Amino acid sequence: MSRRLKAPRAVVLLSGGLDSATTLYAAKSKGYRCHCLAIDYGQRHRRELRSAKAVARLAGCPIQFLRIRLPWGGSALTDRRIPVPRGRSFSQMGQGIPVTYVPARNTIFLSYAASFAEAIGASAIFIGANARDYSGYPDCRPAYYEAFRQVIRRGTKAGAEGKPIRIETPLIGKSKAQIIRLGKRLGVPYELTWSCYLGGAKPCRVCDSCLLRAKGFQEASLAERTILSE
Amino acid sequence: MSRRLKAPRAVVLLSGGLDSATTLYAAKSKGYRCHCLAIDYGQRHRRELRSAKAVARLAGCPIQFLRIRLPWGGSALTDRRIPVPRGRSFSQMGQGIPVTYVPARNTIFLSYAASFAEAIGASAIFIGANARDYSGYPDCRPAYYEAFRQVIRRGTKAGAEGKPIRIETPLIGKSKAQIIRLGKRLGVPYELTWSCYLGGAKPCRVCDSCLLRAKGFQEASLAERTILSE
Repeated sequence: MSRRLKAPRAVVLLSGGLDSATTLYAAKSKGYRCHCLAIDYGQRHRRELRSAKAVARLAGCPIQFLRIRLPWGGSALTDRRIPVPRGRSFSQMGQGIPVTYVPARNTIFLSYAASFAEAIGASAIFIGANARDYSGYPDCRPAYYEAFRQVIRRGTKAGAEGKPIRIETPLIGKSKAQIIRLGKRLGVPYELTWSCYLGGAKPCRVCDSCLLRAKGFQEASLAERTILSE
Repeated sequence: MSRRLKAPRAVVLLSGGLDSATTLYAAKSKGYRCHCLAIDYGQRHRRELRSAKAVARLAGCPIQFLRIRLPWGGSALTDRRIPVPRGRSFSQMGQGIPVTYVPARNTIFLSYAASFAEAIGASAIFIGANARDYSGYPDCRPAYYEAFRQVIRRGTKAGAEGKPIRIETPLIGKSKAQIIRLGKRLGVPYELTWSCYLGGAKPCRVCDSCLLRAKGFQEASLAERTILSE
């Protein structure tokens, strides 16, 4: 019991998708007491937030929901007038920044995570960013996280007192297949996760996120499980 | 008219206080079309947001209000169980980080400002941070802003495309007296601004913010005007 009380705390950004669920289990495997943070930013559907809740519950971790608004739009995920691209090839995904990019989204997420972490005395923030099999978002690259680490070091009380909160990106260099293999070892309940950008009864299988997920399961030689059994 | 249309846009973080009002007028004097962003983060009172509205209106600038919540508390400004310090000396203010520090507040503010700026195509963000006559907040220091500039360069679409949004801190090295003298030259309506951490009918005159404001007006040899005439 005392050992458990002494375990360091971590804030884990949990979206309900494959990557963040794997990240939660990676953080748990390192001995952290994880506090999940799920942010509803007005994305087109809240299906993934239901997934986040189910994943956190199964992992035995508390989850803090936060509802924020980005009233200025600027992304296909928050503005219904901008359609989500369908059926893009992986080489198309590698070119430029797609319309599903949400302006400064990960910066907003990390800022809240830093605030939450300071308030509860957590020593690390985990985020499931991935710079390999991804959609071309600039806020998924290692150099971005290095810059944000400096912000935390210099701009927080914890940092000023010489105990900066670490930002951990355990998936940053991994392929989707590697992520899935890691997750299977750690027991991630992928059947509870949701990747699709749309919020239908079933995944659309044609948005970037569905296509990357399917490719990952295929390359990991595992059957994809997509049924949300909440 | 066409000249006006071509003027660059800026997002100005406006709190309703003395510093941010001066910052707005500084940005206007540089020829920017300013879009104010006022964030209600659950601070003890909303008096300063009324001031922000009045200042923006007089300056002829649109203002976007945003209501956010930091449910984890951690500051005397957002948690009523933590009292706001009163009657501290300026040397006391210079020592350590006070309980009015809000975990990662400026990082959250700048993140939203970056998102807003990207969405409206603004080329700069103005924030009235001040590292001289201030309360010891780590997120008011120049090194912090330098780190955040890197985040913007690396983590936004604008930055990835070689047009990073600038972060302007025109007050960073100025004393409160210098800020007030600058503001008087620029025509800042200080009588509309609100500095007090508490939200009474009149400023308390004993919180850090009131004391720094009074010191500034005294040193600038100007009569302090505190009446909120909205």
